[in-house]
Amino acid sequence: MKRTMVKAKRPTSDALSLQDYFDRYLPSVEAEMQAIVKAVNPLHEDFFGMMRYHLGWADAEFNPCEARSGKRVRPILCLLSCEACGGDWEQALPAGAAIEIMHNFTLVHDDIEDRDETRRGRPTVWTLWGDAHGINVGDAMFALSNLSLLLLVERGVPASIVVAACCLFNITQLALTSGQYLDIGFEGREDVSVEDYLAMIEGKTAALAACSCEMGALIAGASDAQCACLREFGRHLGLTFQMCDDILGIWGDPALTGKPAGADIARRKKSLPILHGLERDEELRALLGREKLLDSDIRRAAELLEQAGSREYAHQLAQEQHSRALAALEDAGLHGPAAQALYELEMMLLNREV
Amino acid sequence: MKRTMVKAKRPTSDALSLQDYFDRYLPSVEAEMQAIVKAVNPLHEDFFGMMRYHLGWADAEFNPCEARSGKRVRPILCLLSCEACGGDWEQALPAGAAIEIMHNFTLVHDDIEDRDETRRGRPTVWTLWGDAHGINVGDAMFALSNLSLLLLVERGVPASIVVAACCLFNITQLALTSGQYLDIGFEGREDVSVEDYLAMIEGKTAALAACSCEMGALIAGASDAQCACLREFGRHLGLTFQMCDDILGIWGDPALTGKPAGADIARRKKSLPILHGLERDEELRALLGREKLLDSDIRRAAELLEQAGSREYAHQLAQEQHSRALAALEDAGLHGPAAQALYELEMMLLNREV
Repeated sequence: MKRTMVKAKRPTSDALSLQDYFDRYLPSVEAEMQAIVKAVNPLHEDFFGMMRYHLGWADAEFNPCEARSGKRVRPILCLLSCEACGGDWEQALPAGAAIEIMHNFTLVHDDIEDRDETRRGRPTVWTLWGDAHGINVGDAMFALSNLSLLLLVERGVPASIVVAACCLFNITQLALTSGQYLDIGFEGREDVSVEDYLAMIEGKTAALAACSCEMGALIAGASDAQCACLREFGRHLGLTFQMCDDILGIWGDPALTGKPAGADIARRKKSLPILHGLERDEELRALLGREKLLDSDIRRAAELLEQAGSREYAHQLAQEQHSRALAALEDAGLHGPAAQALYELEMMLLNREV
Repeated sequence: MKRTMVKAKRPTSDALSLQDYFDRYLPSVEAEMQAIVKAVNPLHEDFFGMMRYHLGWADAEFNPCEARSGKRVRPILCLLSCEACGGDWEQALPAGAAIEIMHNFTLVHDDIEDRDETRRGRPTVWTLWGDAHGINVGDAMFALSNLSLLLLVERGVPASIVVAACCLFNITQLALTSGQYLDIGFEGREDVSVEDYLAMIEGKTAALAACSCEMGALIAGASDAQCACLREFGRHLGLTFQMCDDILGIWGDPALTGKPAGADIARRKKSLPILHGLERDEELRALLGREKLLDSDIRRAAELLEQAGSREYAHQLAQEQHSRALAALEDAGLHGPAAQALYELEMMLLNREV
């Protein structure tokens, strides 16, 4: 699906844009999630309240609210992939909800592991209710995500496909923890290489995006070959996303990203440009080794990275992942507006400013 | 299956005893678990090493060893239930392994939540490798337990039954976290009632035993009614076990249990006899409210509990659960040596000293 090819398909005025798909899918995804993350026993009301807080539906007193939640990109990927492969997106809703709940479970645990005190502008679960509840709330969300996925059977998806979906889902979760294992190990290490980093984001970022797309294809009853293409599309899309995120973490416009300039330098995050630069520039190594980083240090580090070609390097790698994502989508041989929306999503990622 | 009924069935000399079943099943359960908790990627060798350490197969340097592991009662319950219902126990092995891995995942997380530094005579995972790895290792084991269960399909179990097994498994995991949620909430609360306690152990102890037995029946292709009977058997067996455990935690013989006399009093554990006593005896409330408990305080508390009838009360409740377990087993209408072994297991629990 090359750019020109797609352009040729686009013009009809009733074609849905990516935004149209978001508008169409999101309320159903949200309703599906809300139906599963719900206490059955009144004794557990506050337990589920903590989950609902994390998901942005409740405040810290468990009263309903509309807080900032995630962008829900992963379920959208799943539903679009299902529709693009000729499936019924509504049938895939339990899978979309499962993926988003699983993603959020990993965030609850990551926040404890990284000791992050805020997320999306609010205190994290462990900050409000302690580590013990934080760990346990995450565990419950993992169980709920599996239960959501298993609801596919009630939407008429054949049991053999549900079993395959469940395998994919848990293999993905294992990949996420394997990536997180590597990431935890990076902490305090001086010798993390770009290669180490790439192995880590394969698990921590790419695996779930790959799963989201493959899952949609699987539920649509797509062929093994088509499932594999969508998996690769999702994987490279996830990698594109992460690499661009790493660039924005240093050179993003604070007015657009909402984060301070050079945020990842300040946090000494072992991101792609930083690891590339550290391998090449001694002044940068010395600078980032300092106990306290001043604003002028952060500006200087960004300059050094620029000079070392680290920004350009990260951009090239992102561009390469982008091309591979588009090639995989083309290999899938899909037509129609949902496939077009997948294409648009990938295009949007590469040039995003936020 | 009343006592007399069973006695009438027992005499044949080639009948297998409960110990024979343990001897037959355990090596296969262990092999099944070892096959699934294994790194595929060399980068993740130490990650799986931490899991193998917890499971008793590796030392803290990840060299093979044979440390004390759990008794593996839950997989035995599953395989016995399968065989008792006319199924092939070898077909149920992935489920037995899944249940044991899930149980162990919850232990890894419980140890962090309770800040327990040792388990089975060795440092806990978080003590050796920190909270972040501890949480993440547990998450990986949860994913692996689901993957183990899904291997049922490769043993010829119909996909529709695998889906049902997977539902049961994750509903159980949700019950475990709900029980743990209540338990965490008990910490520092003065007004925990016996009723609160019973709701907590329904989730924290009974749910997994119930799941183990029901799972075996499900895989054997037993009727819904038979599955329900085995579920109830497992549930009441779990409750019998917990209540007896609570009695041993105060009045157990240190020479047999390996724990100091009155261990649960020293830990101020909100166990059944202690909650019963606290509701009734003011001196006990004052005593357990002290900052530091001397050995003489612990002995006095045990006396007060005895006087308040708390030991007798716990024993009566355990006896009642025991009778219900036997009644449920009888209702299942099972015959043969595996059913007899389930009966023996329940009989052993009530009168155990360790």
